[in-house]
Amino acid sequence: MSGSTGMDVGFVGLGAMGRGMAANLLRAGHSVRAWNRSPGPVDELVAEGAVAAADLADVFAADVVVSMLADDSVVESLLFAPELLAGATASVHVNMATVSVALARRAVEVYAAHGIGYVAAPVLGRAEVAAGGGLNVLAAGDPVLLDRVQPLFDAMGRQTWRVGDEPDRANTTKIACNYLIACALESMAEACTLAEAGGIEPSALIDILTHTILPGPIYSGYGAMIAERRYEPAGFRLVLGRKDVELALATGAAHHVPMAFGGVLRDAFIDAVAHGDGERDWSAVAESTRRRAGSA
Amino acid sequence: MSGSTGMDVGFVGLGAMGRGMAANLLRAGHSVRAWNRSPGPVDELVAEGAVAAADLADVFAADVVVSMLADDSVVESLLFAPELLAGATASVHVNMATVSVALARRAVEVYAAHGIGYVAAPVLGRAEVAAGGGLNVLAAGDPVLLDRVQPLFDAMGRQTWRVGDEPDRANTTKIACNYLIACALESMAEACTLAEAGGIEPSALIDILTHTILPGPIYSGYGAMIAERRYEPAGFRLVLGRKDVELALATGAAHHVPMAFGGVLRDAFIDAVAHGDGERDWSAVAESTRRRAGSA
Amino acid sequence: MSGSTGMDVGFVGLGAMGRGMAANLLRAGHSVRAWNRSPGPVDELVAEGAVAAADLADVFAADVVVSMLADDSVVESLLFAPELLAGATASVHVNMATVSVALARRAVEVYAAHGIGYVAAPVLGRAEVAAGGGLNVLAAGDPVLLDRVQPLFDAMGRQTWRVGDEPDRANTTKIACNYLIACALESMAEACTLAEAGGIEPSALIDILTHTILPGPIYSGYGAMIAERRYEPAGFRLVLGRKDVELALATGAAHHVPMAFGGVLRDAFIDAVAHGDGERDWSAVAESTRRRAGSA
Amino acid sequence: MSGSTGMDVGFVGLGAMGRGMAANLLRAGHSVRAWNRSPGPVDELVAEGAVAAADLADVFAADVVVSMLADDSVVESLLFAPELLAGATASVHVNMATVSVALARRAVEVYAAHGIGYVAAPVLGRAEVAAGGGLNVLAAGDPVLLDRVQPLFDAMGRQTWRVGDEPDRANTTKIACNYLIACALESMAEACTLAEAGGIEPSALIDILTHTILPGPIYSGYGAMIAERRYEPAGFRLVLGRKDVELALATGAAHHVPMAFGGVLRDAFIDAVAHGDGERDWSAVAESTRRRAGSA
Repeated sequence: MSGSTGMDVGFVGLGAMGRGMAANLLRAGHSVRAWNRSPGPVDELVAEGAVAAADLADVFAADVVVSMLADDSVVESLLFAPELLAGATASVHVNMATVSVALARRAVEVYAAHGIGYVAAPVLGRAEVAAGGGLNVLAAGDPVLLDRVQPLFDAMGRQTWRVGDEPDRANTTKIACNYLIACALESMAEACTLAEAGGIEPSALIDILTHTILPGPIYSGYGAMIAERRYEPAGFRLVLGRKDVELALATGAAHHVPMAFGGVLRDAFIDAVAHGDGERDWSAVAESTRRRAGSA
Repeated sequence: MSGSTGMDVGFVGLGAMGRGMAANLLRAGHSVRAWNRSPGPVDELVAEGAVAAADLADVFAADVVVSMLADDSVVESLLFAPELLAGATASVHVNMATVSVALARRAVEVYAAHGIGYVAAPVLGRAEVAAGGGLNVLAAGDPVLLDRVQPLFDAMGRQTWRVGDEPDRANTTKIACNYLIACALESMAEACTLAEAGGIEPSALIDILTHTILPGPIYSGYGAMIAERRYEPAGFRLVLGRKDVELALATGAAHHVPMAFGGVLRDAFIDAVAHGDGERDWSAVAESTRRRAGSA
Repeated sequence: MSGSTGMDVGFVGLGAMGRGMAANLLRAGHSVRAWNRSPGPVDELVAEGAVAAADLADVFAADVVVSMLADDSVVESLLFAPELLAGATASVHVNMATVSVALARRAVEVYAAHGIGYVAAPVLGRAEVAAGGGLNVLAAGDPVLLDRVQPLFDAMGRQTWRVGDEPDRANTTKIACNYLIACALESMAEACTLAEAGGIEPSALIDILTHTILPGPIYSGYGAMIAERRYEPAGFRLVLGRKDVELALATGAAHHVPMAFGGVLRDAFIDAVAHGDGERDWSAVAESTRRRAGSA
Repeated sequence: MSGSTGMDVGFVGLGAMGRGMAANLLRAGHSVRAWNRSPGPVDELVAEGAVAAADLADVFAADVVVSMLADDSVVESLLFAPELLAGATASVHVNMATVSVALARRAVEVYAAHGIGYVAAPVLGRAEVAAGGGLNVLAAGDPVLLDRVQPLFDAMGRQTWRVGDEPDRANTTKIACNYLIACALESMAEACTLAEAGGIEPSALIDILTHTILPGPIYSGYGAMIAERRYEPAGFRLVLGRKDVELALATGAAHHVPMAFGGVLRDAFIDAVAHGDGERDWSAVAESTRRRAGSA
């Protein structure tokens, strides 16, 4: 892709996910003004061709702002400041983090008040997938805006799934996906603990499963981690998984949808955090069932 | 395969699964003496080359007995009768149904007392897979016996997974697999109800899921049924799914393994039966969440 | 009460409950032929005026048989034997144990076939209450039979609650009562763990509760045990409590009633047994929540 | 009590509870400046001797401010305003509502910054109990402040339970109490549905329970409502009960305490709201189990 078609992107949040995503924007010929709370990741990205943003106001002077921040409260404290938005010239903010439906709705209002468009585009895939440009992008918002930022999605992901004109639709979709992953973790934890108690190697069970009825990255990747009780390094930290379960429960509550598995998941994640597994991979939630069965 | 290498098989239980399995034995050159509680399916199989067994004693006069019956109580009432086994000349009984670990253990004893070997070989796959010879066979038992009956597994399935020398290992494995499927059903039910409440078409969610993180027959096949609320014809009847959830809970209880999702599943299946969905496909358990959310 | 009005009672099962109950029958002037699997308790009761039954046939030669056995399987193996009942001259069997609804129904048939009446009369109260004659008797069966055995209930309990003409009604009532106690245990466990984590002494919470909104023996007695983590000696063994939770779940399943708290209870009891608390008082189920919270 | 010993009280929140509480303050000889969002209840109270506060600043010009507001957000929006507190001359704010532990902690800081003491004193008892002066007051805070406001508690309640020096201790205690009540509701719902399915009148079950093992106002009062399916008028609205379950879950989450019954309660309340029972008494949560069992 030639530099002439590149966009002027302000990028906020160079964590495990964000640094790979921003690097892929650079590789695709976009210019990136990067900002991060700690300066180290910015320096790394500058070495790949990015410009270090002086401050957030500098980021919002770009055409498009892309952010990949940890949770609702960080987004709200950093990017909703009236003084920041009042001076912004960016036309659209693309929020690619897993945040709540409520935040997405508030964002639409806050940004509209300052003439800035808002697109929600959370992604499926972990850090190494982000680094490889293989993310699946779940995007929602004004179709005109989505068309405008599509080149950015093309640079960061392998496929974009448009799920509606209201940005919060993308958040609901992403929350539902992570809920399904969390349910898969818990169900594998219970099935593996049962299998082991019954004399079957958990890894044999996972091997059968993933070669027959339940193939794919979730069951094979996390299944192996659970079977081998190998929860480090953390591909996705358990405390973030807990946050996502809470997002699902909150979304359910807002719509009066009982999420019965969610109550079980919530307790299992609390149990895991209470036992010091918060910074391990979220598949470590499996240890909760093992502990209860007396086989930890 | 030439008839000269064919085995003499007594086959009990020509339900939706059994008739396809027995037909594949015939096609592979084995001779089959078939018995079924109701005569219709026997006649059909005779048209394909089987012999109608005069009675169960006739079945147990074959070299190998294969059975595919509904549940523990049917197996126990039909195939554990002392007078039947006392006169039997079969060398091995291959039980391919999803039965309890406790029944498998009892079977080993009962058959050993009459000098008959016992192999557990439950299968993964529904009726159409059985008809096509594409089952996955989960087999456990004495390796000598397993080797002897392997040609039968080759005729009925696409792959055999040996999981141990104790027959009950195969039952535990099968119970764990069905538990994971039931968990996938419930988690899709909750995620789809959430998605719909949040403005997303359930079928769009399933489409994204199955093309990204959760591919494979369970999520795509049952996902479509749940998204479209299409639970007929029943590929696997809900009352049988309920039985399998109970098998998982009972196995967990025997080993002191809490199955937290199992409690939720149990209630959802009870709720489904209470609302008249017992004879529909077990994916109809999804309606329980919809009802609770007031969106049924 | 004068001996002239006393009844001729065969008593089976002199466990912690049964010995106090039988002793109260003696004190009220009834004659008792006692049988127990181990002879020790029989000897003790003989010292109080009972006669040691030669065997169960001797027990069933009395006018009325009263039994207080551990569970369904013991009742079935000891008291349903056709050869025993064929020779029996007793007019009625009063089963005072907590057994299943299914067993009660089978009992009605089995006894009717031998011309013996069947009354279900499980009781509320632990061993010390039984010894003091303060049990509450939950009785169901043919009113004529109930009238006939009422003097026995009067001797053993402080009040009799008649709940129907079908014996199983008494079992359902008793199962529902024990279910409510188990729910109270678990809810106190969770509330006390929460309180302690929040800086409140569990005993202070229980003190407030039992002097305001939740008075009575369950909350005050078990509450103190949970607050003080004092689970020995066992007033009611945890494994029996687990059995009663299973009875509630089975009764619910038979009627298609989801028992959502029951799933939680089941797992908590399994967890407790897995951690070696099966022979402690059933209030030890509270330790499950403490363990999960990392505060055990 | 003579007017000479009366205190100068600003009272905020004349809902179903607050009006009775404020009236009892008047009866005990205290002077009350009352404020309410809607003026009707203020007029009623003025007829009993109160003074209508001009605004909230007028309320905070009293010696002691007592508030009884619906939830965290109302407290925060009305009573945390810096401009209000900057001009306040009140020495202490007594918050008697059921609010979160987090709010209590924030309140301590907010008020301390303006030199105002903060006492948490949520109560046990419904509107008619408040009207009769029979509340149980759960109080926590600086003992000097508690001593100072004790005459107010004496006027409004029958007993005061001091649970600590940190105000949030009272909130934790109250949250634990309401959690136990909610658990009692759900367990009665399940037990009554089971009983009815088994041929027992729910009211007969409740009658037995409350005269034996589970006496007291919660089981007898709510038990009758559940047995008779009589949920109006609402003594305590279901939406408020749902809020209290969420408070318990949030408090548990903050301390890493899994509240397993809480997940079930949450879903049952969501189900109840989804079916239009939000404004009925919170015992209407019982209908959720009935619906699931197909017996609604």
